[in-house]
Amino acid sequence: MTAAVSAVKAALRSQAIETPSWAYGNSGTRFKVFAQPGVPRTVREKLDDAAQVHRHTGVAPSVALHIPWDRVDDYTALAAYARERGLRLGTVNSNVFQDDDYKLGSVTHPDPAVRRKATDHLLECVAIMDATGSRDLKLWFSDGTNYPGQDDTATRQGRLAEALAEVYERLGEGQRMLLEYKLFEPSFYTMDVPDWGTAYAHCLGLGPRARVVVDTGHHAPGTNIEFIVALLLREGRLGGFDFNSRFYADDDLMVGAADPFQLFRILHEVAKNGGFEDGDGMEGVAFMLDQCHNIEAKIPGVIRSVMNVQEATAKALLVDLDALRAAQRAGDVLGANAVLMDAYNTDVRPLLAGLREEQGLHPDPMAAYRESGWQERIVAERVGGEQAGWGA
Amino acid sequence: MTAAVSAVKAALRSQAIETPSWAYGNSGTRFKVFAQPGVPRTVREKLDDAAQVHRHTGVAPSVALHIPWDRVDDYTALAAYARERGLRLGTVNSNVFQDDDYKLGSVTHPDPAVRRKATDHLLECVAIMDATGSRDLKLWFSDGTNYPGQDDTATRQGRLAEALAEVYERLGEGQRMLLEYKLFEPSFYTMDVPDWGTAYAHCLGLGPRARVVVDTGHHAPGTNIEFIVALLLREGRLGGFDFNSRFYADDDLMVGAADPFQLFRILHEVAKNGGFEDGDGMEGVAFMLDQCHNIEAKIPGVIRSVMNVQEATAKALLVDLDALRAAQRAGDVLGANAVLMDAYNTDVRPLLAGLREEQGLHPDPMAAYRESGWQERIVAERVGGEQAGWGA
Amino acid sequence: MTAAVSAVKAALRSQAIETPSWAYGNSGTRFKVFAQPGVPRTVREKLDDAAQVHRHTGVAPSVALHIPWDRVDDYTALAAYARERGLRLGTVNSNVFQDDDYKLGSVTHPDPAVRRKATDHLLECVAIMDATGSRDLKLWFSDGTNYPGQDDTATRQGRLAEALAEVYERLGEGQRMLLEYKLFEPSFYTMDVPDWGTAYAHCLGLGPRARVVVDTGHHAPGTNIEFIVALLLREGRLGGFDFNSRFYADDDLMVGAADPFQLFRILHEVAKNGGFEDGDGMEGVAFMLDQCHNIEAKIPGVIRSVMNVQEATAKALLVDLDALRAAQRAGDVLGANAVLMDAYNTDVRPLLAGLREEQGLHPDPMAAYRESGWQERIVAERVGGEQAGWGA
Amino acid sequence: MTAAVSAVKAALRSQAIETPSWAYGNSGTRFKVFAQPGVPRTVREKLDDAAQVHRHTGVAPSVALHIPWDRVDDYTALAAYARERGLRLGTVNSNVFQDDDYKLGSVTHPDPAVRRKATDHLLECVAIMDATGSRDLKLWFSDGTNYPGQDDTATRQGRLAEALAEVYERLGEGQRMLLEYKLFEPSFYTMDVPDWGTAYAHCLGLGPRARVVVDTGHHAPGTNIEFIVALLLREGRLGGFDFNSRFYADDDLMVGAADPFQLFRILHEVAKNGGFEDGDGMEGVAFMLDQCHNIEAKIPGVIRSVMNVQEATAKALLVDLDALRAAQRAGDVLGANAVLMDAYNTDVRPLLAGLREEQGLHPDPMAAYRESGWQERIVAERVGGEQAGWGA
Repeated sequence: MTAAVSAVKAALRSQAIETPSWAYGNSGTRFKVFAQPGVPRTVREKLDDAAQVHRHTGVAPSVALHIPWDRVDDYTALAAYARERGLRLGTVNSNVFQDDDYKLGSVTHPDPAVRRKATDHLLECVAIMDATGSRDLKLWFSDGTNYPGQDDTATRQGRLAEALAEVYERLGEGQRMLLEYKLFEPSFYTMDVPDWGTAYAHCLGLGPRARVVVDTGHHAPGTNIEFIVALLLREGRLGGFDFNSRFYADDDLMVGAADPFQLFRILHEVAKNGGFEDGDGMEGVAFMLDQCHNIEAKIPGVIRSVMNVQEATAKALLVDLDALRAAQRAGDVLGANAVLMDAYNTDVRPLLAGLREEQGLHPDPMAAYRESGWQERIVAERVGGEQAGWGA
Repeated sequence: MTAAVSAVKAALRSQAIETPSWAYGNSGTRFKVFAQPGVPRTVREKLDDAAQVHRHTGVAPSVALHIPWDRVDDYTALAAYARERGLRLGTVNSNVFQDDDYKLGSVTHPDPAVRRKATDHLLECVAIMDATGSRDLKLWFSDGTNYPGQDDTATRQGRLAEALAEVYERLGEGQRMLLEYKLFEPSFYTMDVPDWGTAYAHCLGLGPRARVVVDTGHHAPGTNIEFIVALLLREGRLGGFDFNSRFYADDDLMVGAADPFQLFRILHEVAKNGGFEDGDGMEGVAFMLDQCHNIEAKIPGVIRSVMNVQEATAKALLVDLDALRAAQRAGDVLGANAVLMDAYNTDVRPLLAGLREEQGLHPDPMAAYRESGWQERIVAERVGGEQAGWGA
Repeated sequence: MTAAVSAVKAALRSQAIETPSWAYGNSGTRFKVFAQPGVPRTVREKLDDAAQVHRHTGVAPSVALHIPWDRVDDYTALAAYARERGLRLGTVNSNVFQDDDYKLGSVTHPDPAVRRKATDHLLECVAIMDATGSRDLKLWFSDGTNYPGQDDTATRQGRLAEALAEVYERLGEGQRMLLEYKLFEPSFYTMDVPDWGTAYAHCLGLGPRARVVVDTGHHAPGTNIEFIVALLLREGRLGGFDFNSRFYADDDLMVGAADPFQLFRILHEVAKNGGFEDGDGMEGVAFMLDQCHNIEAKIPGVIRSVMNVQEATAKALLVDLDALRAAQRAGDVLGANAVLMDAYNTDVRPLLAGLREEQGLHPDPMAAYRESGWQERIVAERVGGEQAGWGA
Repeated sequence: MTAAVSAVKAALRSQAIETPSWAYGNSGTRFKVFAQPGVPRTVREKLDDAAQVHRHTGVAPSVALHIPWDRVDDYTALAAYARERGLRLGTVNSNVFQDDDYKLGSVTHPDPAVRRKATDHLLECVAIMDATGSRDLKLWFSDGTNYPGQDDTATRQGRLAEALAEVYERLGEGQRMLLEYKLFEPSFYTMDVPDWGTAYAHCLGLGPRARVVVDTGHHAPGTNIEFIVALLLREGRLGGFDFNSRFYADDDLMVGAADPFQLFRILHEVAKNGGFEDGDGMEGVAFMLDQCHNIEAKIPGVIRSVMNVQEATAKALLVDLDALRAAQRAGDVLGANAVLMDAYNTDVRPLLAGLREEQGLHPDPMAAYRESGWQERIVAERVGGEQAGWGA
């Protein structure tokens, strides 16, 4: 009752999941960051770890950068370093939330001098993209307010639109702007981009290369994320995903860990609506992880996350769309649901193990990593220096 | 520290809050509808009750209709009946959720015949507006799905867009379409218009006379409603409000009963962003109630609700906007918040009692209604017949 | 890496899932009840339908009653009728929410006469249990308030405690009281038993035969239900489950349809903490469905639900507890999670099909029901009369 | 229609709100801690700031300590230092979440050595109470798990019970244990004490001096906090409050800033159920702040918060309980609600200004602080050293 395995495998072969440089560094909550042994001290060491993930999974060929956490003198050299390890540099993420000037906002700050500084940082990120060859600039703003009356919502929207327009104009050929939304945290009364509607409205105002990013942890309780995905794909405005999972808020747990069925439903909408089709092209959907491995081992945590996305993708591709559409047209509620569940209930691990073996990979990436000795090596070698983290 | 009382009173004099015909009939939950003595049996009796509300509050001059609950043979005669009681007929609300054909949707149903039937009902509503002289057609769709896979989200969006376009084309001079969104209920997996972003996207596609309606009970937990209000006003797309209050879901309690501070913040955004300005004009914001007085007396419940909106409006108008903006520009978090709270903490009941007396009204509408003997009269007279309710 | 299949099958053979009589009747939302052809008109016809579910699944041998919906003159005769169809009468559910007297509460109503009437109904339910041989009296109260100030929380708790004590005293040998909690609906400000803590506190005050019922749709967003299950089992106070699933509120969808991983985690806690052990005994956990098949076919909807519980149970039983505990003791976060996920990711459908065949059943209960012709027969035969529903 | 002002003033005169030492230090989110000029470097400087709050409000006579953040060599000397400034040392808060050993838990950690270390810290806190003369030990545990399967819920409850019992036994005459619960953060799958029910169950097992603390930011969306307050007071198990306010999660904003009506309802339950009566006695309810002034000025933020609690208390005391109970008994929904709202809608600021003047205080504490020059002084003098914060 499910789709043909050969077609599924073909689609899986072209899948690419981007891992974030910061997933390899330390992270935590406001209460405590628990450091882990072997964590990278430099961007290059982050790339070394990301290369391990790609080596064992075969589907994680690019790495997202976070500026200034990953600031280096020579991005061309950094790109070459990545290339030598079988990787490429991916999305560039701006950071306008960790400077003391940004206490009341960055591009929406009441003070024009602070807005100027923040916008300049965004422009710097585009310059970095020129050097790294990145397609996507991902913008997330912590901007917002904590108290009613603190600032004016409509005015802040105007400031935001102005900054975005300046950056959008600066984009070069083959570059896109991905705008992320988030319900709350670190601002607790308003966020300046709290929901997909706000991001979408700004993207419409900017132009076709402005797209919305869906971070799976950034919604109000009860939000139907796959509905948003379907809508944005229909409108040609889905730029990509920041994958992670959550039970409560922006927990940033491993994707697929909290609600694997939701992940499947999201990827089912992607599959149905052409989201796997354009890959690296200008219409492509970027599949990125954005997680915090606060208590679990970091590289294995990333490998597990990549595998979770891959497994959910395989299940989504297995859905028998012809049967599904027939049942939907017939108004057969239970029948249509059964077609979907049939794919979800399939154990795709053998299929993926087989695919890996066809690609010359170990069938079990977790075991492969364990056996590689990399973890022991980095724990032994990465002594001294300052471990990478959010504050670094 | 608050704004000038004379200006506030002037603004309050022009306020108009529309009450819904169905608030005067019986309502309940899926568990039980508790009937109340004296409830109207006919549309005319609903108008009689609405006239009581306006008589004692002075700010509820129009009544929203719900078709088919308020279907009559002669809408021109009905409008005259209203006029004789000092009222006018207001927004026309469609109902495409109570026919057996709509089990799987109305305008988004898989079957084109059902979609046709539903769209025809919407067109009938526009014809009724022609007769009643109503400005606004309010559309709320219960359409959606209960189970993953049941139907295709993107396809349903297409069907929805098609129906809306046909109805929008049919609108006459001086008529608008207000599109309502709702997170869930009665559909439990997807609603076809679950959030403001979806409603907004459809309105953009339709044209300038399509506007979004904000029902204050239709959001996910934690949603900042006043943010949405500010955004829609900035975009010129706020059509109006369905006021009610909620602790959990779409509880449909009396507006202002659950979170009066939220109501104040919402009306503060309306005041700041020009939402009180155009009144009955094509750019006006419609202030409507949409509530269920399941256990409290109905007419007094409506009066209390109207008063709650009026009190929150008075507080919103009292905000010293100059002082607020100065504090905001200065980045004075506590100062700006204090300006807002100063207005909220003001007891505006004496101001409103004075305003009523200036208008020849009893200073206390609840007491005035009690003393009027109307309740005793309708309980005595409205015997026999079938009481109005949602199913009628 | 998973537990032995033979032990899993043995445990599955003793599983019993109770279906509710009202699942076979019509149900809906406050907006509309969509009637379905073939729906039972009488309690006996409900039992006929329930017999179909048990016939094809083999794990649904008992049926819960709802009084007064299932009130008959002779419960002994009804029990015999059930027995002839391979069924037994199960839990008796009280209903003190559909009489006009209960508008402001039943056992917590301000008026002692209403409280007396409500308590008398509960005592009647115990008398029915004497006749049916039921073990469990399940109490759910819609009691609560809609508005702050409407009534006094602490006073209502006292009234509730008094009524429960009277009923508890009336319980006979081998009878238990199961107390259900619910966050909201139909009361929207307070429910008198809103959470497990409140139910637990009352049960402690009553005695060892008072137990808490967990309805999986009755929690606040983000509540970790399996945590509550583990706690109640540890305290010896888990009486049973009302299974269903929800995306938003008390959606009453088919269990396992919204979050199958959650269902698995719940049953994993049951398995780990001895909840499958005592079966029909006084320490047994009752596994009941409580759902509304508003838009899907009813008997197939119940069959699917029973299968979903069975599949989740099979996965829960497959968890390799020795490996899990070893990883937990070692603080191996990813390893422990992997042991759990390994069972969840297993496709248990072949195992269950095999089990059914061993029991002389069709391997696919949905197909078996389709092929049985029962649906066509009841649609043809059950013409005229009044279909059963919540109001009946 | 409201209660007698003289009685209200008398009650307000005896109110005491405890401020937390850490509110005067730096705090922030996981994204950034924004340092503020003038922030204390030592516990003594925190007490100096707290003395300012008490000096201007007259109702904040005690300060809560947090160990190890406030660890000193000589607590007797510290208590004397507080006394000289018109303060006393209040509740002692333990901290078992910032040591590297606590990554997987403290008193519930799988490793008994870590549990021993954590319990020893709790015992140390009791020893500090002996020296400071504190009545209350407040326990909040970050313990929990991030991933399903990571550890066993029931087992962790056993470990928790064991540690609590040891600490409870150590309590001296006149000492109590307050157990706090929290839905999530920093653990994201389970917290070991996620809700009031869990805290209550442990308190029951310990003895009468174990009480539950309600932090107003620690609940699931939609939770009715005042219901919990009423229940715990009825059971004699409410130990106190950690006041703050939230729009989304544990935002730790100023109390009364997000939902002042909720704060009023909570204090109404306190007033009705005797919670203001025993003050410093063993049955007293502790009124504590627990907030993060991330972006607003800290001392003014604390003053505003204290005033917000005071204003809400005044309104709660103004409720005409006789009229309320009469309306409740009569089942007069609107009438009972109106009695409550009448008090809430009263502007109590003049009453409180008058009360302050009677006590020889400035009528406006915010202005008094501004005029005092303290802020300028600490900004000028507190140069160098390490500012206090959560990590300090």
